[in-house]
Amino acid sequence: MNKGRLEAFSDGVLAILITIMVLGLKPPQTADLSGLIALGPELATYLISFVYLGIYWSNHHHMLHATTRVNGKILWANLHLLFWLSLLPFVTDWMDEARFAPTPMAAYGVVLLLSAAAYTILQNAIISEEGPDSKLAKAMGKDVKGKVSLLFYIVAIPASFFRVWISGLLYVGVALIWLVPDRRIESRL
Amino acid sequence: MNKGRLEAFSDGVLAILITIMVLGLKPPQTADLSGLIALGPELATYLISFVYLGIYWSNHHHMLHATTRVNGKILWANLHLLFWLSLLPFVTDWMDEARFAPTPMAAYGVVLLLSAAAYTILQNAIISEEGPDSKLAKAMGKDVKGKVSLLFYIVAIPASFFRVWISGLLYVGVALIWLVPDRRIESRL
Amino acid sequence: MNKGRLEAFSDGVLAILITIMVLGLKPPQTADLSGLIALGPELATYLISFVYLGIYWSNHHHMLHATTRVNGKILWANLHLLFWLSLLPFVTDWMDEARFAPTPMAAYGVVLLLSAAAYTILQNAIISEEGPDSKLAKAMGKDVKGKVSLLFYIVAIPASFFRVWISGLLYVGVALIWLVPDRRIESRL
Amino acid sequence: MNKGRLEAFSDGVLAILITIMVLGLKPPQTADLSGLIALGPELATYLISFVYLGIYWSNHHHMLHATTRVNGKILWANLHLLFWLSLLPFVTDWMDEARFAPTPMAAYGVVLLLSAAAYTILQNAIISEEGPDSKLAKAMGKDVKGKVSLLFYIVAIPASFFRVWISGLLYVGVALIWLVPDRRIESRL
Repeated sequence: MNKGRLEAFSDGVLAILITIMVLGLKPPQTADLSGLIALGPELATYLISFVYLGIYWSNHHHMLHATTRVNGKILWANLHLLFWLSLLPFVTDWMDEARFAPTPMAAYGVVLLLSAAAYTILQNAIISEEGPDSKLAKAMGKDVKGKVSLLFYIVAIPASFFRVWISGLLYVGVALIWLVPDRRIESRL
Repeated sequence: MNKGRLEAFSDGVLAILITIMVLGLKPPQTADLSGLIALGPELATYLISFVYLGIYWSNHHHMLHATTRVNGKILWANLHLLFWLSLLPFVTDWMDEARFAPTPMAAYGVVLLLSAAAYTILQNAIISEEGPDSKLAKAMGKDVKGKVSLLFYIVAIPASFFRVWISGLLYVGVALIWLVPDRRIESRL
Repeated sequence: MNKGRLEAFSDGVLAILITIMVLGLKPPQTADLSGLIALGPELATYLISFVYLGIYWSNHHHMLHATTRVNGKILWANLHLLFWLSLLPFVTDWMDEARFAPTPMAAYGVVLLLSAAAYTILQNAIISEEGPDSKLAKAMGKDVKGKVSLLFYIVAIPASFFRVWISGLLYVGVALIWLVPDRRIESRL
Repeated sequence: MNKGRLEAFSDGVLAILITIMVLGLKPPQTADLSGLIALGPELATYLISFVYLGIYWSNHHHMLHATTRVNGKILWANLHLLFWLSLLPFVTDWMDEARFAPTPMAAYGVVLLLSAAAYTILQNAIISEEGPDSKLAKAMGKDVKGKVSLLFYIVAIPASFFRVWISGLLYVGVALIWLVPDRRIESRL
């Protein structure tokens, strides 16, 4: 089975997710700079969710590039990942409307955590198909960045009920860790 | 005529359908967990419709993979399938807003039934082009899963006027039958 | 210059146009069949616009399939076509909201007429690049269907101010003429 | 790393951006021509933003066509460009709702300026990967059109606070400069 359509479909879903969030951005209520400033939090959450989806697209691109074949299990692991990512605009909106209240902040982290878990499942499904001696398996190595991210999310979710800015910082922190595309794969290929 | 653009266009439409449903998910009305719990039914119908569209994408992927050429009839059979699938977000919304009233529950089943019928028409159009000795024709065999699904829908539609939970169970049941990608094709190729 | 991205971009825009119209379909206001029946006109205009976009996609597919190379002029002729088609959901909505009043009915025809003109311009740009002896130029021949369509639109636009059902019939008529994919090209290739 | 998915993803995002703006076009409030005329400004801004996105797609197409390979830096330079372009529907809406007030007019220019800067960064990232003797580097030459555009935007942004029609004219002017696809690249290839 070839991977072309899996890439094309994932590109389609990610491209739509990344752009429908902009539909949630209502024009400022006033025609001056204060209107734009009042929208600051919405623009900031749009930016962070855009960056997260960009990171997933970029890493997905790298991982599939190193993949030689796909099977039914991989197709569904990929749809599972897309399902959690599709909830990102939903929790972003909630976080905005609730003005960064603890529960929506935690919900944002839960969606990020489940997306990361789904990505790991997809990665394992691909490695299991490719074999332990494949380029991808070797390139992944210990997957330190992946494990650190999961740890950050697990800390950030309960933290939002104490200090929301801590979980906010942790979400930004994970994004910064990943902003650099996965050089492990790039350097091996 | 090559099948590349038919796949690309179908991927585009399915990717958009699967993601526009998330636009229908309004953020919870309160900033605590009770707001999220109140959205439970919407999230459940989002999940089931997402899974249905995922199943169609996955089976479409498998079927087209086993297809060697397309003609004008296949193009239109494919557009016909996409038309019925495009109504899925519409009936999902109706079911949500009417809180699982009998008529919207039946309407959901009608759209699923007509989508399944359209898929069968597309399959027959492809088999008729490929010939009875083609890999696809052999892989399809008796198409037991397809026939069981049609039967389930035909029972579920009237059942919604007696007990809505029966049709709900049947819709979930069909999804579970298909969640495993079509191994008939996969094992033959 | 290769035609792959022109096809991919056009597929993307057409796939989105064909599916965003479904966003305009609000769920029925009541939870019974009368609610669905009240939406009959919206569903009918959704169907006709879906068919028109399907026709353009199908004919575009056939035409580009017979095209060997593209230039800057063809890129812009294609964007020009996509611009007019992008207004189809807009005039469809207007026609619905205004309950088939004469002006929106005429506006629908104007958008169809300008789309058809844009398609002809694109076709001429491609034939001019391919040369008069190309397969496409020969396959087009006298383009009777194209000319009949233009005539129908030109009659339908003023007719909507006298009897809206006449223009309605003419729009359906053109769709029926084109529903069969362009056999001129198919038979030559 | 191949450039196919970068093109496909960019095509997806641009196709969605170009078509979601049409979702912002509400049907006219009355069923006669006066309703359509009242929407004139919205239609005009839709047209200009459509043309801008078309220009970016066309130039992106040309530039990537002349690109032989991509790296992680290019992926992110491309996502950065898509981020600024994704804000175009947002500022277009604001400009419409605020009836061309100075601040939204300036904001439109700021988004155009940052998109142009992001395009230049992407171009430099590609040239740096391709090398100074590559076809692309030579085709770009002095990039007069790019520099003139930046100058126009820099004048237009403050100008909107004195006379909005001046910045309006400058935005239309830049669009006209670029409407012709980049013949520098086309003629060299």
